[in-house]
Order: sequence, then C-alpha cells, then structure tokens
Amino acid sequence: MMADLHRLVAEITAEMSAAAVRGRVADYIPELAKVSPDHFGMVVITADGREVAGGDADMDFSIQSISKLFSLVEALSRDADAVWARVGREPSGSAFNSIVQLEAEGGRPRNPFINAGAIAVTDLVAAGEDSRAGIGAILRLVRDLAGDDSIASDGAVAYSEAATGHRNAALAHFMKAHGTIDGPVDTTLSTYFHQCAIAMSCRQLARAGRFLMNGGIDPATGHCIVSPERARRIAALMLSCGHYDASGEFAFQVGLPAKSGVGGGILAIAPGRASIAVWSPGLSPQGNSLLGTAALERLAHGMGWSVFNPDC
Amino acid sequence: MMADLHRLVAEITAEMSAAAVRGRVADYIPELAKVSPDHFGMVVITADGREVAGGDADMDFSIQSISKLFSLVEALSRDADAVWARVGREPSGSAFNSIVQLEAEGGRPRNPFINAGAIAVTDLVAAGEDSRAGIGAILRLVRDLAGDDSIASDGAVAYSEAATGHRNAALAHFMKAHGTIDGPVDTTLSTYFHQCAIAMSCRQLARAGRFLMNGGIDPATGHCIVSPERARRIAALMLSCGHYDASGEFAFQVGLPAKSGVGGGILAIAPGRASIAVWSPGLSPQGNSLLGTAALERLAHGMGWSVFNPDC
Amino acid sequence: MMADLHRLVAEITAEMSAAAVRGRVADYIPELAKVSPDHFGMVVITADGREVAGGDADMDFSIQSISKLFSLVEALSRDADAVWARVGREPSGSAFNSIVQLEAEGGRPRNPFINAGAIAVTDLVAAGEDSRAGIGAILRLVRDLAGDDSIASDGAVAYSEAATGHRNAALAHFMKAHGTIDGPVDTTLSTYFHQCAIAMSCRQLARAGRFLMNGGIDPATGHCIVSPERARRIAALMLSCGHYDASGEFAFQVGLPAKSGVGGGILAIAPGRASIAVWSPGLSPQGNSLLGTAALERLAHGMGWSVFNPDC
Amino acid sequence: MMADLHRLVAEITAEMSAAAVRGRVADYIPELAKVSPDHFGMVVITADGREVAGGDADMDFSIQSISKLFSLVEALSRDADAVWARVGREPSGSAFNSIVQLEAEGGRPRNPFINAGAIAVTDLVAAGEDSRAGIGAILRLVRDLAGDDSIASDGAVAYSEAATGHRNAALAHFMKAHGTIDGPVDTTLSTYFHQCAIAMSCRQLARAGRFLMNGGIDPATGHCIVSPERARRIAALMLSCGHYDASGEFAFQVGLPAKSGVGGGILAIAPGRASIAVWSPGLSPQGNSLLGTAALERLAHGMGWSVFNPDC
Repeated sequence: MMADLHRLVAEITAEMSAAAVRGRVADYIPELAKVSPDHFGMVVITADGREVAGGDADMDFSIQSISKLFSLVEALSRDADAVWARVGREPSGSAFNSIVQLEAEGGRPRNPFINAGAIAVTDLVAAGEDSRAGIGAILRLVRDLAGDDSIASDGAVAYSEAATGHRNAALAHFMKAHGTIDGPVDTTLSTYFHQCAIAMSCRQLARAGRFLMNGGIDPATGHCIVSPERARRIAALMLSCGHYDASGEFAFQVGLPAKSGVGGGILAIAPGRASIAVWSPGLSPQGNSLLGTAALERLAHGMGWSVFNPDC
Repeated sequence: MMADLHRLVAEITAEMSAAAVRGRVADYIPELAKVSPDHFGMVVITADGREVAGGDADMDFSIQSISKLFSLVEALSRDADAVWARVGREPSGSAFNSIVQLEAEGGRPRNPFINAGAIAVTDLVAAGEDSRAGIGAILRLVRDLAGDDSIASDGAVAYSEAATGHRNAALAHFMKAHGTIDGPVDTTLSTYFHQCAIAMSCRQLARAGRFLMNGGIDPATGHCIVSPERARRIAALMLSCGHYDASGEFAFQVGLPAKSGVGGGILAIAPGRASIAVWSPGLSPQGNSLLGTAALERLAHGMGWSVFNPDC
Repeated sequence: MMADLHRLVAEITAEMSAAAVRGRVADYIPELAKVSPDHFGMVVITADGREVAGGDADMDFSIQSISKLFSLVEALSRDADAVWARVGREPSGSAFNSIVQLEAEGGRPRNPFINAGAIAVTDLVAAGEDSRAGIGAILRLVRDLAGDDSIASDGAVAYSEAATGHRNAALAHFMKAHGTIDGPVDTTLSTYFHQCAIAMSCRQLARAGRFLMNGGIDPATGHCIVSPERARRIAALMLSCGHYDASGEFAFQVGLPAKSGVGGGILAIAPGRASIAVWSPGLSPQGNSLLGTAALERLAHGMGWSVFNPDC
Repeated sequence: MMADLHRLVAEITAEMSAAAVRGRVADYIPELAKVSPDHFGMVVITADGREVAGGDADMDFSIQSISKLFSLVEALSRDADAVWARVGREPSGSAFNSIVQLEAEGGRPRNPFINAGAIAVTDLVAAGEDSRAGIGAILRLVRDLAGDDSIASDGAVAYSEAATGHRNAALAHFMKAHGTIDGPVDTTLSTYFHQCAIAMSCRQLARAGRFLMNGGIDPATGHCIVSPERARRIAALMLSCGHYDASGEFAFQVGLPAKSGVGGGILAIAPGRASIAVWSPGLSPQGNSLLGTAALERLAHGMGWSVFNPDC
C-alpha cells in the first residue's frame, strides 16, 4: 500500500502541477493576491507514521480559515459549553461571509467554520486577556501539534486583512450588538486576523492534523489533545461545514472530513488512515482550492479512503 | 459482539418504551395524527445477516420522507445526469418545506431530500408515463429490496396528504413555473403523496436498507442495486441532508448517514456494519423522531459505530 | 387650463407614439405576447367632466393587475375588517410575484396589490358562492363605474393565464396551507385569472377611476362608491404599493397615486383634479408600462399635478 | 380655521397627555432610556405663519432619525447625482436597521431614511473633510432653517450611541466592504451619531420644516432651500419611507409625508398647509412615536389635511 500511495501522490502532483485551469487566487486581501497560482503541494501522513510528500510540500502559505479548526480545539478545551452556547452545528446554506443568516437567527452563527462563527469562537479565546494572549494560545497549540516552534503569524498578511476586512468587522459588530461576543471588537478581530495569517507548509499542516486521524491522540507525543468522542464530532463538523456552501458537494465527491482556507490549503482526515494537507492557491467560486479539491478526490478514490466506504 | 448488540437493543427498547417525553406526533396530515406516540420499534441487521429486533418491530408505519431515498435510487438508475441537472447536493440550511431557497435560486432545489428536491426527483420517475406507473416503479423497488411483496401505499394517508398538502402543491407549482418539473403537476404530486404513504415496519425498512450498508449490493440476493461509488455518495447525501435543518446536529451526535420521515421512522446505515431502522411517532421541532434519534445515538455510541471512528 | 391640457396630451401622444425605446411586452402569458409594442393611448378626465384623449384611447387591452383595485373596492364594500385581517398595508420591497415574504410572515401578504395579496382579496369575493359569482360581481362594479355594460373578461387571456400561471398557483396553495384563503384554490384562481383578463380601453378605465378623483363619489351618477376616507386610503395604498418594487420611484418621479398592470395600462389619480388612464404594452424590468410611466410624468409635471404640490 | 386649529391642538394635547398606554421608550441607547414617557408636545406652523403649540412644545428631545432629512438636504445640495448613485428611493420592506437587504443588493441601501442609507448619505457630507466638518455643516443647516443658533448636538447622547451602536457599525463596515462609503468608517459613524444626537424642541423642529410645506422656500427668510421639484420629491420619500416598515400604515392612516425618530419625535408636512412637529417618547414596535402618530392622525383628520384629499 505504501508503494501505491507513493506512486499515487507522485502522479497527482505531476498532474496538478501541469493543470491548465487552476482557479482564481483570492484577491480581496492584497497580500494573498501576490501568490502565484502555479504552486501545488501535498503531504500525506499515514496512521503508521510515514510521510509521503509531493510538489511544494515545504513552502509556507497562509492557512486562513483552516485556523478555525485550531481555535475551535483551543476554545473547546477551555469551555465547550460556552462554545456551543454561542454557535450552532448546522451547515449554513450560505456563503462563508454571509450576514443574512445572522440577522434571521438573532446573531447566532450556524457553525464555527463560517466567518461569523469562527469570530465568535476566537472571542472566547481572546476574551478577558491582554490583546496578544489569544493569538499566543492558538500559536502554541499549532506549534505543539506540528512539533515545530518556528510556525508564526505573518504580520503583513494580518495587517492586510485588518485594513480590508470590513466585512468581518461588520460581522463582529453585528454579533457584538446581539451579545454574541464579549470582548472589545478590535481585540477579537485582531486575534482573528492574526490566526488567519498563520503561515504553514503542507508538511506542518498534515502533522498538526494527526491527532484527528488518531482518535484525538497525537501519535508523535502520545498526548491526548481531545477525547475520542470530540475527535469524531470535530470530524463531523468538518464534513458538514468545512467547505462553506460547497460542503455537501465535497462530502459527495470526496467523502472525507476536511477544512479549507482561501489561501488555497485544505486539511483532510481519513479517520484511522491518514492526515492529508494539500495546497494550491487558485480557488473555486465558493472559495475552496480548485486543484487541492481535485487532488483529494483523486487520492481518496485511489486509496479507497472515504468515511462512507464499508471496507474502510 | 452479537451478545452485546442483543443486550443493547433490549436496553434501548426498554428505555425508549418507558420514556416520558416523547415529542409531538405530526398533525398536519390528519391520518398521521391518529397514531399513538407510545410506539417504539427497532431492528438492526448486521453485515453478517443477523436481525436484532426490539419493541414494535413488525408494526407498519408511514415511511413518509424515507421514501425519498428509494425514489432517488430509482431515478438515478434511470438517468443520473437528469437528477443532478435539476437538484443540488448541498444542505439547504432551511426547513424541509421551505420555499424561500427555491425563489432565491431560480427554482432549483438544494438537494433531493428536502420536499422540493424530492418532488423534482419523483417527477423524473413519474414523467411520461401513465399516472400509476411512477408509484408502481417505486413500490417494485422497495418490495424487491425488502424481499416482501406485501408492502403497499396506504390510500387513506395518500388521500389525506393530497387534501391537505397545499404547501407541497405550492412547491410543485413554483418549480413548474421555473421548468424544474416536466409532468402535469397533479400526476407528480399524486405519485409523491403515494410514495410518502408507503407503509412499512422497522424490519422491512432495515431490510430495504441493506444494500447501502453493503457497498450497493443486496446481501440477500447478491444483486447490484447501485455501484459502490453511488452507495458512498448516497450515504454522503444522507449524512449532509438526511435530517433537514438538523442534519449537522445528527452527524455531530450520531455520526451515521440516515434519512428520517415525519411518520417517526429513521433508516440509518453503518457502512460495512449494519442497516438500522427505528420508529417512534413523536417528533422534534425539526420534524425528526425524538426517541428514534435518541435510540440511534445510544446504539451508535454503544457499538462504536460512527463513520468518523478510526477503528470502524 | 383646458387648452393647455389638450395641447399637452397631444404633445405627449405624439412623442410616445414615436419613441424608439418602448420596453418589452410581457411574454409570460402567451396571449399578452401577441400585442404590438407600438400602441400608445391616453385619456384624461378632469374634475369638471371633460375628457381629453390621445392615440389608441378606445382600443381594448388587458387590465391585468389594475383589476386588483376593483376587486379591493368590492371586497372592502362587503367586509373591510376581513380584508385587513388577511392582508397588510405595507410596501413589500419585493417583486410582484415573490413568495419569500409570504414564508417569512406566516402566509400574510404585505398588501392587496402584490399578487398574493390580490389573490387573498379575490378569495373574499369568490368565497362561498358558485364559481362564476366572484367574477360576476367584479365585472358589475367595473361596468357600473365605467358606465359601459359591454366590458367583459377575455376568455382566451384567462385560459392562457390559467394554463401558465403556476407561480400564482404556488402563491394560492401556499396561502391555503396557511389558512389565508378560504375557498377551493381552483375557484379562487379562476376568479383571479378572469379579473386580470378584463379588457378595457383607456377611456373606459379613466371613467372607472373617476370616483377616486372625486372623494369616493362617482360624478357621473352621484352614487357614493366608497366613503371619502376610504377613497383617501385607497389612494395612499396606490401611492405606496401600486407599482410593486418601483412604487417609491413612481411616487418620487410622478407623485400621483396609480396602479399598473402588465398589460401595459396604468390608472392614475390626481385627487380633486383628474382621473387618468394610459396604455402602452412595453414594460420596464419591474413590470410597469415604460411609456405609460413617462407619459404620466410629463403630464403631471406639465399640469402641476402632484399630491406633494403645495399649490395643488 | 385658526380657532378650530387652536381648539383641536388643545384637545389633542389634553388627550395625549392623559393617555394610559404610551408605548415603550427606546432603551438601546442608555441616554434615551432616561427620558420619561409622560412627555407630550406639539407645534403646528401654518402657511400663513402662525404657530399653535401644545404641551411640552419647548422641551428639547433627541431628534435621532429625523436628522436624516437634514443630512439628505445638505448632501443633495452638494451633489444630488452622488446621493442617488449610492442609495435608492424604494421602501425597504424591512426594519430600520436591517442588514439583509444590503447583502441581497450588493451593499446599496434601498433609501436614504433607513439607517444604512442615512449613513451612506452622511458619508457624502463627512467625506474628505476634517472629522468635525460634516456635523458642523448639518448643524448650520438646521440652525438656519429653525432660525435658532442655540441648537446643538448632545455629546452625552452621541457618546452613548457610539459606545453601543454596534449594529450601525456593522452596517457601515458592510458598506465600506462594498465601496458604498468613501470615508474612514470611524469619521462617518461619528458624524452620524452626532447628527442623531441633535437636540431640538417641537417648536424648533416645526420651524425647520417650514421650507418643505412651502415648495422649498423658507417663509421666514425667503431663501430657496431646495427647488419646488426637490421639495415634492423629498415629501414623496417621506411618505414612502419615513416610518420604516410602518410607512405604508402611516400613509394609510394619516396621509401626510413625515419622518420619525426613536427619540419620539415626528416632523410631518401638509404641503401648502402646515409644518407640524410632535413629540412623545414612547414607541410602537416599529420604532415610531405611539402618541405622536395618534396625535397626527387626529390632527390630519380634524383639519382635513391629507395629500390624498381632493379638497386639499
């Protein structure tokens, strides 16, 4: 199987690197728009600890919304009841940055992976502390999971998001008006923009996802990051809500829990099998990596990795 | 494990039969309102073919929206491209009978499991034939899957739905105005009301679901009902969309693909493990069986059945 | 002033008859699509009883939604409380045939001039009688107001609407599901389609509107059609809601209460001054007569007729 | 007629001062919540220049949204095309602070009297200047119209709004994200909060509205504030949109162009007849003064002042 996996990753990498249609690089944050659409990287870490890499596997990119997974883990560890008191667990049926659903439902975001929900979760991590403590906690978690203390937030990207992130500011003020967030809006937003600006490579990201493939236990350290039940539930949220209003399609085509970011990265989990990170900056209209999604579909089908597979 | 399963089903049946809070029986169709909330039934069929039953396992109930699964299988077998040309694969974020999303999206239902989407799928089965051919085809499929030719549609329930189903009529006329359905509205609705009125027991329903646990092959006959890929995809749709606007919560709590009906039935699939049918007529506010959901949660946790379980 | 009015009507008629951009004739009802966009007609009846006509002033056209004014007057005469129990008095902010607002507000239409509201009003006139009684009563009122017993509903248009009016059928079934309408859906819709299919000329229509210019009293007969207060209130509704989601713009540009129809007719009222009917079949994107609106704007400005004019 | 008006104002004042049901004082801004609901004041200024006052006619209150009228006049004077390029002229069909419509329509507010539209208009007045220039210009206009240089913005109210106005901040950031507003969000919001915090009495307000009763010319000075056409158009906007989602009802019941504020004030115009200011702090559920509306209804009916009155 490892031979198969090596060959498959190589094939996918060759194919994706050569693809003509690559999607459109996110341009609403000026710093992201500077990245070339030509990149493609991929790392698969199997349950037995092997790493299979392809393409730009060690090049940093902005993880953007994938960070919502880590801030959720951090917030759940502190106070799970507080998390679920302020965000739901349902797909939103709307775009990632929609404000309509918030108004219809009294300021309560549908799930922690749309922007509003992630800001509400980050507020729990940022609240009541000095303005750098929240991002510090999230970074410590990510570094610990990836086993790499060099991981950092890119200040230029964070600044770029803050300067242009009026839609996220609208969501935050709207939730503040409804009492969904506690902290000063500026502190919460600053923490959120910095978590989105965390720069990681596919290798670091796949490593940071290992605990989710492994029932909540980090295989590198043996530490229990979350309980087995919480690991399953986070995977369920990733499947239902991890790709915004293309989540159903991703579940239908790929069949793996995954979280995407507008930087072009996707972290996918094959429970008991693998932690997978892919990166290609060009996006689909829904804001998910076009080639990253195609690569995951190829990989999942080739390896028979689907949570809906009876042999899996 | 079989001993465990027997004990667990007996425990769950005892607990659910005695539960004080049982939900509210659907009253928008007069015939459904006559059913007592005291019923509870459950049948689990494992991959090796054993059936474990509890409570009112052999009592008929109206399968209602669970029928959408069978009409989808029938329509996909005929022309899968036509199905996906008219309905999407995304959770709707709305109630099962909402018309708002239809207007916002040009008459195209989000998925085949909300009422609008199911009517559009049924129209494909009913179109171009005499007015009884559609329901005949769906019944043939269900009887074949359950191995029981006695299964029938309850005329009184179908009539009751037709007389009061103005909201479904609104959805059908709206889609007719947008060209989403082809046939005469009356024929399509009649077929839809009759498929919803199919009466089955938990045992019949669990049998009819075996092919989905088994990669598309009916273990009783060895017939290939759908391809392995289609079986996975249908399971993905069930997980994303099978419980309307409580689908995310069901995935979070139970972690199994399932389809519910307002008659109080739920068909759930543990791929490679089991086909499970539960029934209790009292509903949650979202229209899903209250005790049926609780029973599935108990069963799934007790048996370690979750598509997100690394050991599964 | 009469000399001015004659000259102005002649000028406007010449200009509109020659206009190159004429809007798009309604095509969703096949019978309406057959009408040539080249027509333009106009009749002004002043408070002192003179009639000034231009263009195709005596050619019949389908009054369509202008009929909502007459069914409202009929329903208010029978039971005003019942009318306001089922429809509101607010602009909808939505298109004439939108169903979204109905769902958000429990099946209660915002006002009697959007399709849903008009169907609910017509249901009051049609309910509890034989299926021809409702349209009979509306026709009697219109004939009486216009002083012309030859006015009739065009059967071919009514049939055409019934065969293609799935969106109106959706609205009616939706309201039936919410209890907003009483009668059998088919009877209510048939009455509605027949009222919309009433054929009138500008001259007949301007005559039928005289009572609204004159505080509720028909100047031709001296009969009190509605009280002065009701006449003012109907005018207020026309100003707020008479042009669907272009009502605000019409109030802004023209400043007169008016009701439009997709047949290209508009009936406008200058209280104490004039009853005005215009007709040109080409429509704006919002479904109002393009040249009819332009003609009314020219006339209102030229004559200083605006309800917001301090000298008026 | 003056005798009648004196008696009517006295009667209305007595009745409103004694009314038991007074509505609910706005509590979302702490400073406004401090005002007693017991107040009632009223001033009518007729076309011939007489002032008839009742109750707390000279007590200051926070004009809140009535200020939107003055910022609109100021912005139109500077660049009317720029105003209509960024806001529409249609009733919104939504609450005063709704954000849903903004998302559905690409960040363009429906009209200048909902909060979003007013913020967009204020941005035109505030843009490109030092942060105090915008509010300075609006205050100069109001003082000039009222002939009273003592009128000022209440700093405590403005500060209170800024500290709690997260919903308005959400609207502003949302529009900034869509390019609907130019200036720094903080400057625009500060100007907006200060204009809303302008404190005036009924007497001052009725005087400030005289130009609208008089075809655009201030009768006190003879200055042309706006053209006759613009005066009519502003009156049309007041009638269509001046009371948020109760505008249709106000037009139906009262029949006069008017603009309300959550401080409990209403400025109403009877073109060619009167400028009227009323004040009572208790509000209807839609956010309009309960007794102020009742008083205007009494006055309008008593005097026969309605724009829909043929004798008017």
